Amino acid sequence: MKYNFKGEIYPVNKNASEILDIPCYSSVEELPDGIDLAVVVLPATIVPKIIEQCGAKKIKNAIVVSGGFSETGEEGRELEEKLKEVAENHGIRIIGPNCIGTIDTHAPVNTTFVVGMPEQGGIGFISQSGAMVAAVIDWARGAGVGFSRIVSLGNQIDVTETEMIDLIGNDRQTEVITAYAEGVSDGAQFLKISREIARKKPFVILKGGQSEKGAEAVSSHTGALSGSKEAYSAAFKKSGVLEARTMEEMFDWARALAWQPLPKGKQVAVLTNAGGPAILAVDALEKAGLEMAPLTDETKAYLKSRLPKAASAKNPVDVLAGSGPATYTLALEALLTDETVDAVIVIQAPQDWFLPASLAEVVGETAGLHNKPVIASIMGKASVDEALNILHKRRVPNVAFPERAASILSAMVQRKEWMNSENHQPEDAAEFIPADTDRFIENENWEKLIESYGISLPDQSEATSLDDAIEISNQIGYPVVMKLIAKEHTHKSDIGGVQINLNSDDDVRNAWRNITEAAEKVNAEMDGVLIQKMLRNGQEVIIGIKQDEQFGPLVLFGTGGTDVELYKDVKTAVAPLSEIEATQLIESTIAGKKMKGWRNLPPADIKEVRKTLISMSRIAVNHPEIKEMEMNPLYVLKEGDGAFAIDIRGSK
Amino acid sequence: MKYNFKGEIYPVNKNASEILDIPCYSSVEELPDGIDLAVVVLPATIVPKIIEQCGAKKIKNAIVVSGGFSETGEEGRELEEKLKEVAENHGIRIIGPNCIGTIDTHAPVNTTFVVGMPEQGGIGFISQSGAMVAAVIDWARGAGVGFSRIVSLGNQIDVTETEMIDLIGNDRQTEVITAYAEGVSDGAQFLKISREIARKKPFVILKGGQSEKGAEAVSSHTGALSGSKEAYSAAFKKSGVLEARTMEEMFDWARALAWQPLPKGKQVAVLTNAGGPAILAVDALEKAGLEMAPLTDETKAYLKSRLPKAASAKNPVDVLAGSGPATYTLALEALLTDETVDAVIVIQAPQDWFLPASLAEVVGETAGLHNKPVIASIMGKASVDEALNILHKRRVPNVAFPERAASILSAMVQRKEWMNSENHQPEDAAEFIPADTDRFIENENWEKLIESYGISLPDQSEATSLDDAIEISNQIGYPVVMKLIAKEHTHKSDIGGVQINLNSDDDVRNAWRNITEAAEKVNAEMDGVLIQKMLRNGQEVIIGIKQDEQFGPLVLFGTGGTDVELYKDVKTAVAPLSEIEATQLIESTIAGKKMKGWRNLPPADIKEVRKTLISMSRIAVNHPEIKEMEMNPLYVLKEGDGAFAIDIRGSK
Repeated sequence: MKYNFKGEIYPVNKNASEILDIPCYSSVEELPDGIDLAVVVLPATIVPKIIEQCGAKKIKNAIVVSGGFSETGEEGRELEEKLKEVAENHGIRIIGPNCIGTIDTHAPVNTTFVVGMPEQGGIGFISQSGAMVAAVIDWARGAGVGFSRIVSLGNQIDVTETEMIDLIGNDRQTEVITAYAEGVSDGAQFLKISREIARKKPFVILKGGQSEKGAEAVSSHTGALSGSKEAYSAAFKKSGVLEARTMEEMFDWARALAWQPLPKGKQVAVLTNAGGPAILAVDALEKAGLEMAPLTDETKAYLKSRLPKAASAKNPVDVLAGSGPATYTLALEALLTDETVDAVIVIQAPQDWFLPASLAEVVGETAGLHNKPVIASIMGKASVDEALNILHKRRVPNVAFPERAASILSAMVQRKEWMNSENHQPEDAAEFIPADTDRFIENENWEKLIESYGISLPDQSEATSLDDAIEISNQIGYPVVMKLIAKEHTHKSDIGGVQINLNSDDDVRNAWRNITEAAEKVNAEMDGVLIQKMLRNGQEVIIGIKQDEQFGPLVLFGTGGTDVELYKDVKTAVAPLSEIEATQLIESTIAGKKMKGWRNLPPADIKEVRKTLISMSRIAVNHPEIKEMEMNPLYVLKEGDGAFAIDIRGSK
Repeated sequence: MKYNFKGEIYPVNKNASEILDIPCYSSVEELPDGIDLAVVVLPATIVPKIIEQCGAKKIKNAIVVSGGFSETGEEGRELEEKLKEVAENHGIRIIGPNCIGTIDTHAPVNTTFVVGMPEQGGIGFISQSGAMVAAVIDWARGAGVGFSRIVSLGNQIDVTETEMIDLIGNDRQTEVITAYAEGVSDGAQFLKISREIARKKPFVILKGGQSEKGAEAVSSHTGALSGSKEAYSAAFKKSGVLEARTMEEMFDWARALAWQPLPKGKQVAVLTNAGGPAILAVDALEKAGLEMAPLTDETKAYLKSRLPKAASAKNPVDVLAGSGPATYTLALEALLTDETVDAVIVIQAPQDWFLPASLAEVVGETAGLHNKPVIASIMGKASVDEALNILHKRRVPNVAFPERAASILSAMVQRKEWMNSENHQPEDAAEFIPADTDRFIENENWEKLIESYGISLPDQSEATSLDDAIEISNQIGYPVVMKLIAKEHTHKSDIGGVQINLNSDDDVRNAWRNITEAAEKVNAEMDGVLIQKMLRNGQEVIIGIKQDEQFGPLVLFGTGGTDVELYKDVKTAVAPLSEIEATQLIESTIAGKKMKGWRNLPPADIKEVRKTLISMSRIAVNHPEIKEMEMNPLYVLKEGDGAFAIDIRGSK
């Protein structure tokens, strides 16, 4: 009632005859037919009974606010099961239990007990924590953040976060979706729906519960390096969901994404009336991976002619403290017209001789004449309230200190880049299943498996005797490498089971002895020795795949070697990969930078690495029975010379 | 006048007979004697003349607000020189020019033209940007941040940031010093004064202008890895200055440091009435390097007995939404009494049934009964104003979202750790100067130099012929390493000038040939070959020293090898190092973690690394004529077996 719900309200309570002057029903049975939604705020123990009654009344939707279910222990869990069963029997959809309900500012409907209705706006907020909803509503008032719909999901016995993302994503009033989530209920479904929605509108998420105590002992680097946190981030990335680090950042981003167009590229101009704040903005932009727009000569000449003599006509453009809204207008117009500028940050340090509101007016109006994002930082707090209102009306976000503008723009660039990559979807992995893969997997013959997917192996063969080894080495041609074959020892180099740089039969003899001794020392049963062509002057990267419980097939790429867990230069993505995703994955690591040519190293065969990465991603998709597999290293020679999988391990 | 200055004010203006009802003097000459301070707000061109007149009048202090000096170009620079000369001739101390003056809220004096006087409080703020002062004052009103003194320094022709740090650091009303600085005028002086001040009170700095375009080509890793940004950070660390990343963080930290005691350790308890916000706090604490307090069994049992059945009596302690200020009081008291708890974050998600102000009262009062820091996060914005006032009166900082509390506590822990390390000062480097160092440096014989400082080298000798090489190799004992000696080639391994794992005279012959060919290929003049005992199963770290323009001798430590610039696992410190500083430097890198024992690697001889690091830091202090020197690697064997400097390069 307080928030102007336009429909009928039917209070039910057995002890009251009316509530707030509305006649009260003593039971659900007595209610008239045709009721759309039941909001249940009763002790947990009687909730299943009430839902049962709703079923009889053909009420098909319920929000169960009551707590006291699975979150409280075993008894509660049983009660929750019962509630679920009753609801299913009657085909009733339930939000909750243990939630605070839902708000629609446009209908309007507000079923929550939270004080105050949020301002109307274009942001939808889905939360797996009721407390967050209350905090966000309270905080958002006055921050220029208006909401379309807010939902608290509670224990999610029926309606899940993904269904809600779908619903709110398709809500006409919602321009941007935000979510606080501690997990998702169905990874595959989340990936599918989120991506569909993210193609239509921006979707920002804050993932709670990212701290992880050291992962348990696992059999491969891939397992150790790609925990649940990395899987979530990879899933968000794949489906175009922007991952914020804090609540403030989430709503900073959401507001800008709702109000401003996306930038075409990452070149930013900074317009300011003071040096210090501009320096902070430039620092923050660089940290966020954005670039300073160079400005055309024309723009610079124009600015020089219009700005005070001592002003800076280069980016950052400093109009100096003496300039007012008119100078800002001319400079902002010039910057927004400049083709090298993708976005502008407008900074005003407080001064005493014109109203911040006047600047807000001209910035808002000028920004509206162009299709590039503008973020304002009219600094201070006490004196800019009116300016804020004006900017908010014009849909220009304002931040109290300019550093936050860099984070906002980086999120917008991230979305733009994802939108671009969405035009290049990976091919269907199932179309690339070679023959015999089942047999290879059955026998755990990982080398044959990857070979059948077109991944290159170095010239190699297994030897079971020294004579054998010498013969093979001569066939392959020196130099060669010899490696102990012993199932139970995965870190063979650690125990002396790998001998490199063998140049002669004598070297092979020595190596054979060393490996035999090494195997004896750790009581390893020696199944033979692998002899490989020794490759040189290449770079070592790791490529791994794994099945994530929640999101399925993942691919991992980064710097290879024995210290991978220590330096952690590895990034994770959801399989299958498109060309563009493979390139992004490679370029997000130091290994990727190094492959472009580093010191005396020539550029490496990145094309072949990309191909291998895509093939591995297809293996992950096509053969979910493989729990983990990795090559460490993939040995990458110079451009055109290929990349070879050297040490392949897998587990079913 | 507006801000209640208690002394006499004498306006001077040749066109007015009175200003704001105060009689106006038409020139400085006419002023009475005994004036303490001149505030000059006149066109730049006449400022030198006016300061001259002040000199004649024996006015010994001036704030020159006027802009139009060196910040505007050559003409302005000349004018500034003239101003400086006049001031020096008359012994007048000048703040500015091109500044906005100074504020003392306690005197009170306010010479600025900024609108509004900041709230009185314990924070001193020094700024090299006038715009920052205005923005900060404006923003701080209502944020619970009160100031003692604020100074804008402008072009710093006379009074420097360091003098001001000294002055405000010794100001009775100032509890915490904050500064926005784009540089310091004298590095050595800054180090000395800042450290003196930081021992007395917390000092937080925000350094502007950290972005650096890629450093120019330099001759060593050390040069490339330790630019001006790293030097500043090292200087701040050495002198106990806390480096904030944003303005908001600086004042978040300052407020907490002014109001709350330092934590003894890094174990934090989180007290909450809702799960979601607590999860965000725990995430942020972990990211900030803090730990969750385990709580004693006693505390857990007590909490279990006092909290609702479904509540969490473990850390984070969740009292649930139904609990009010009394439950919070009991739980907070229990946590603050618990010996495993060093600090507490108290979170309240908004609810409707008790006043946030009531919680603020009990949190403030309970916190005041203990000597451990308490940070509140009474969430939301619109409904907590009264609560904020109460908390601020009780000197308990509040943050709108709990993530910020983690950053605050990490700064407090950092200060505590620095205070502890301050009890262990490095010994005087000058006491460790060996004989003959001048000669070694003269001849650029870096190996002899470091040897004289007690740093170990592997068994090695130079050979100028193949026969020579074979003889030496046999003396040293196989395996050996051979390295090209050729002055102009520093990255010898890149050109094939390093041959390792040589086990026989034949190997030495091959290697000699390879090295000779490699040298020919790049047209290098081969001065001979260095033959070294080949060390095995060790770890490679880099230790470098350099002279920084601003802060003098620096030491650098991290992962060694040829990819140091790529992975950048290196940290910089100001020399000389104490034992504790050397340990902190080592432990701040991945190389340091690896040396503690990694996979099959046994723990390395960290003691020897520390010794080498300290010796190198002494070399940096004692011999500033050495511009850069590094060993890459220092080859570290297992505990007790030593660490050996392998490839030493230096330049004068």
